[in-house]
Amino acid sequence: MSNKPQGKPTKTAIRFTREADFPAWYQEVIKEADMAENSGVRGCMVIKPWGFGIWENLQRRLDQRIKETGHQNCYFPLFIPLELIEKEAAHVEGFAKEMAVVTHHRLVAKDGKLVPDGKLDSPLVVRPTSETMIGESFAKWIRSYRDLPVLINQWANVVRWEMRPRLFLRTSEFLWQEGHTAHADEQEARAETATMLEEYRALAEDWLAVPVIAGEKSASERFPGAVETHTIEAMMQDGKALQSGTSHYLGQNFAHAADIKFQDKDGGESFCHTTSWGVSTRMIGAIIMTHGDDDGLRVPPTIAPHQIVILPIARDEEAAARVLPAADELAAKLNNTVAFGNVVRAHVDKREVNAGEKRWSWIKKGAPIIVELGPRDLDQGTVMVTHRTDIGGKAPQQMDDFVTNIREQLESIQATLFQQAKAYRDARVRTDIQDFEAFKAYFKTDDVNTSGFVRAYWDESAESEASLKELAVTIRCLPYDQPTAPGVCVITGNPATKHAIFAKAY
Amino acid sequence: MSNKPQGKPTKTAIRFTREADFPAWYQEVIKEADMAENSGVRGCMVIKPWGFGIWENLQRRLDQRIKETGHQNCYFPLFIPLELIEKEAAHVEGFAKEMAVVTHHRLVAKDGKLVPDGKLDSPLVVRPTSETMIGESFAKWIRSYRDLPVLINQWANVVRWEMRPRLFLRTSEFLWQEGHTAHADEQEARAETATMLEEYRALAEDWLAVPVIAGEKSASERFPGAVETHTIEAMMQDGKALQSGTSHYLGQNFAHAADIKFQDKDGGESFCHTTSWGVSTRMIGAIIMTHGDDDGLRVPPTIAPHQIVILPIARDEEAAARVLPAADELAAKLNNTVAFGNVVRAHVDKREVNAGEKRWSWIKKGAPIIVELGPRDLDQGTVMVTHRTDIGGKAPQQMDDFVTNIREQLESIQATLFQQAKAYRDARVRTDIQDFEAFKAYFKTDDVNTSGFVRAYWDESAESEASLKELAVTIRCLPYDQPTAPGVCVITGNPATKHAIFAKAY
Repeated sequence: MSNKPQGKPTKTAIRFTREADFPAWYQEVIKEADMAENSGVRGCMVIKPWGFGIWENLQRRLDQRIKETGHQNCYFPLFIPLELIEKEAAHVEGFAKEMAVVTHHRLVAKDGKLVPDGKLDSPLVVRPTSETMIGESFAKWIRSYRDLPVLINQWANVVRWEMRPRLFLRTSEFLWQEGHTAHADEQEARAETATMLEEYRALAEDWLAVPVIAGEKSASERFPGAVETHTIEAMMQDGKALQSGTSHYLGQNFAHAADIKFQDKDGGESFCHTTSWGVSTRMIGAIIMTHGDDDGLRVPPTIAPHQIVILPIARDEEAAARVLPAADELAAKLNNTVAFGNVVRAHVDKREVNAGEKRWSWIKKGAPIIVELGPRDLDQGTVMVTHRTDIGGKAPQQMDDFVTNIREQLESIQATLFQQAKAYRDARVRTDIQDFEAFKAYFKTDDVNTSGFVRAYWDESAESEASLKELAVTIRCLPYDQPTAPGVCVITGNPATKHAIFAKAY
Repeated sequence: MSNKPQGKPTKTAIRFTREADFPAWYQEVIKEADMAENSGVRGCMVIKPWGFGIWENLQRRLDQRIKETGHQNCYFPLFIPLELIEKEAAHVEGFAKEMAVVTHHRLVAKDGKLVPDGKLDSPLVVRPTSETMIGESFAKWIRSYRDLPVLINQWANVVRWEMRPRLFLRTSEFLWQEGHTAHADEQEARAETATMLEEYRALAEDWLAVPVIAGEKSASERFPGAVETHTIEAMMQDGKALQSGTSHYLGQNFAHAADIKFQDKDGGESFCHTTSWGVSTRMIGAIIMTHGDDDGLRVPPTIAPHQIVILPIARDEEAAARVLPAADELAAKLNNTVAFGNVVRAHVDKREVNAGEKRWSWIKKGAPIIVELGPRDLDQGTVMVTHRTDIGGKAPQQMDDFVTNIREQLESIQATLFQQAKAYRDARVRTDIQDFEAFKAYFKTDDVNTSGFVRAYWDESAESEASLKELAVTIRCLPYDQPTAPGVCVITGNPATKHAIFAKAY
C-alpha cells in the first residue's frame, strides 16, 4: 500500500492495517478520527463534527463553483406523491425500488403505545432523487425560449433503503447536491453535462486531491432514463473503483414524462433537453480510502476543519500561563493569513488530555499540520512542527518563519497527497492485459497489494459486458482520452475502437 | 399601514393592499417576488431562487455566529424510531401528534400500480425536531466532565403535518437549524440559553432589520419538557405577533429521559443540564410581513440575493453594444467593494423584457437598489438610481460617486428599514390599557390599521391566562425589561409585579 511503513511490521495507530483487513481498517479510521457513527436507525448515520466539517468545506467550494457557472439554489419537497413516481416509471411491471414510504400523518396513543394514525389517501415517497418533483416545477415555470435555460441546484438529504449499509459509502439517508437544468436544444444541454462533469473532476483532483478518471458510462450503467451518463471514477487503496460524481444528459426523456415544453423563437412548441448531476457524502468515503494510512485519516488541507492544530505543552500552571496565551496568539496570526483562497483555520487544543494521547488523536484525525509549543520553544522562538504526510519528520521551525510560510506548507501537503494518490493509482492501472484469460486471472486474485483497474479495448457489446458479471467486475467508464488506433476487445477478441476501464467497485 | 402612500388610493404593484386584505397581500407578494410556491404535496413548498437566496444569506450569518460562539455542526438522521418518541412522551395516553410516519421501505408494481411493500418491523417517524435522536448520541458521547460542554448544531429539514398550511409560516416540511447542548451545571446551561437568545435577537434586529421583543414564555407556552422557554417576538404589519426564534433551558428533564450523565470531578455521577434552540424558514415570513409594502417585498440589503440590480437600457443593437459592457463593468466595480462584512452583490439583468416591466419586477422582488443605465447616462457619466425604500425618489448620481458611496447607501437603506419597522411596532404597542374591558374591546376590533400588542401587568396565574383563549389572544412573553414598581393585572385586577406582552399571533 502507498504510504505504509516499509520493512518489518510496525505498530500502527489504527488497529487493523489496510493490508490485513481493508474494510475493518476503513471502519476503524472513521471511528478513531471521530467522523461518524451508526445511529439507532438502521442504515442512517450520525455525522460528527470532524466528518461534517470536511463535508462543509467540500460543500462551500462546490457551491461556489455551482454559482459561478450560473446556477441558483432552490429547495424542493422531501416527499414525492406516488403518482409521480408511477408516471416516471415507464414500465411499471417489474419495478421494485427500495424507498421509504410514508403512509400516515399522525401518531396516537393506544393501550400505552404509540401507533400510526391518519392514513394518507395516497402514500408519499421520501425522495430518492428529485427529477420527478423538479420536473413538475419546470413544466410550470417554462413557457417560452426566453425562460431558458433554467439552471438550478439543491443541497438536500435523500433516502434509498440499504440492506447492507456502510458509513458514507452506502447509507439509507445521505446528503448530496442535485443539479437540474432545462435547455432549448441538445447542444446546450450536452455542453452543460460536460461542464458539470469537469467541475466534479476539478473538485475531486484540485480540491480533494483525489485523482479520477473521467469518462462516459456504458449503456447498462447509465442512470435510468438518461441518454448519456458521465462519471468520475476514483481508485481506492484496495484497488476498487468508487464512482465519485455523475452528470447525466437526459435528452427529452424526462421532458416528455413531465411535459416540460416551451414556445420557441418561431412560435412552435418544443420539448426541453434536460440534465441532472450530483455529488454526495459518499465522497467522504473516497477521501478516507484515497488518503488514509495505517495511522488514520489524512485530510487534504483544502477541506480540513482545522488545518493546523496547536498543542500547548505545559507541565504546571506557571508554564500554562506562558504557553496558552502564546498558543492563542500564534493561532490568531495564522488565522490572519490566507491559503487556497480562504482564511487559514488554526485551532488550539486546550483539552485536559496527556500530550502523547493528544498528538495521536490529531494524527488519527489527519490534521495536516500539528504544532507543539512548550516553554522551551517560547524561549527559543521556535515551534515543533509535524506534517501529517511525514509524521516521523517532526522538526523545529522558527515561529516567524512558520507563520510566513504557512501557505506554502499547506500547499506542499496538498500536492504531496495528490502526487502520492496519483502515483498509487497510475501504478495500479494495468494496460498490459490483452486477453480474457489474463483478465480473469487478474481479477480473481483479489490481492489488496496488486489489484486495481484494467484499461483495455472493449467491443461495446452488451453481451461482452454481461460476461463480466460472474467476475464481479464492471465497466467503470469509457475514458475521454482514447487511443487513435483500433484494437481487439479484451473480452471477446472482436475488433474494438475504444478503451474501457474495468474494475471491481464499491 | 407604514410606508403606504397617503391620500387617495393609488394603483399599487401588488393586487391586494395590506389594508384591504392582509393574508391575500402576503400570498401575492410571495408570488410576485417569485420567492416560493406550493408543490403537489399538500403543505410542502418549493422555495425558489429569490426566496432561497434570502435564506442562504440569513443562514450564512447565523452559522458564522453559531460557530463563533463555540458550536460545531453535525448531522443526525431524518428518521426517529417510534420507541424513542414513546420514551420521551412521558404521558403516552392522550398523546396525538401530527408527524409523518414511514411504515414501508419498498415500492413494488402490482396490477400496473405501485404499492408499498417491505413493511418495517417498527414504524419510523420523520423528525419533527431532534431532541430524542441527539439525546441518544449525547448519552453515548458523554462520559466525564472533561467531555463537557457538548455544543452542537444542525441545519436540517423537519416535518410537522399541517392541516392549514401557509407558505413559510406554516408548512409541513420546513428548514431550520436546531442547536443542542449539554452542560455540567445549571448555571452554564442557563447562560447558554441566554447567549443563543441574544444571538437570535441580534440576527433579527441587526441583520434582518426586524425589531423584536425578547423575553420568557409563560408556563403554558413553553416547549414541552422545557424548564424555561425564551423567545423573540416580532410584530407583523397586521399587528399580529410572530414568534421568530426560541431558546429552551431543558433542565435535567431530557437528560433523565435519554440517560445523559457524566462522572463529575469528585467521581460522582450527575445528569447533564441541556438546552435547545432554533430558527426556521418561518423567519422569511417575518421579513415579508415586516418590510413588505403595497408594491411588494423590500429585502434588507444584508440578505438580498442581489443588493444592486443594474438594468441596461438600449433601444437598438448599437446602444446595446455600448451599454451592456458598461453595465458589466459597473457590476464588477461594485462587486469589488465590501458592505456588511461581505463582498457586495450586484447583478446585471440582461433579460429580453421591456424596461418598465423589468424595473417593476425588481421593485416587487424588493432589490434594495435599482440602477438604470442608458446611452445618455454613459455620455454624462451618470447612473439613474432608485432606492427600494423610496421608489418615487429616482435620481441621477455620478457613476464614480455611486460606486464610492455604495456601502453608505446600502447601510442607509438597512437603517431605514429597521427604523420604519421599529416606529411602526412601537406605535402599536399599547401600554395604556389598564382593565379587562378595555383589553377585550381592543382585541375585538381586529382593525388592521390599529391592532397590535398590549403591554400590561399580569398576575402570572394560569387561570387569568386561560381567560384569554376566547379572545384568541396569547401571552407572547414576559419581556426582559420589566417595571420596577408593582401594579395590577390587566385581566384580574389582582396585584402583579410583571409586565407581559399580549397579542394575537401567527
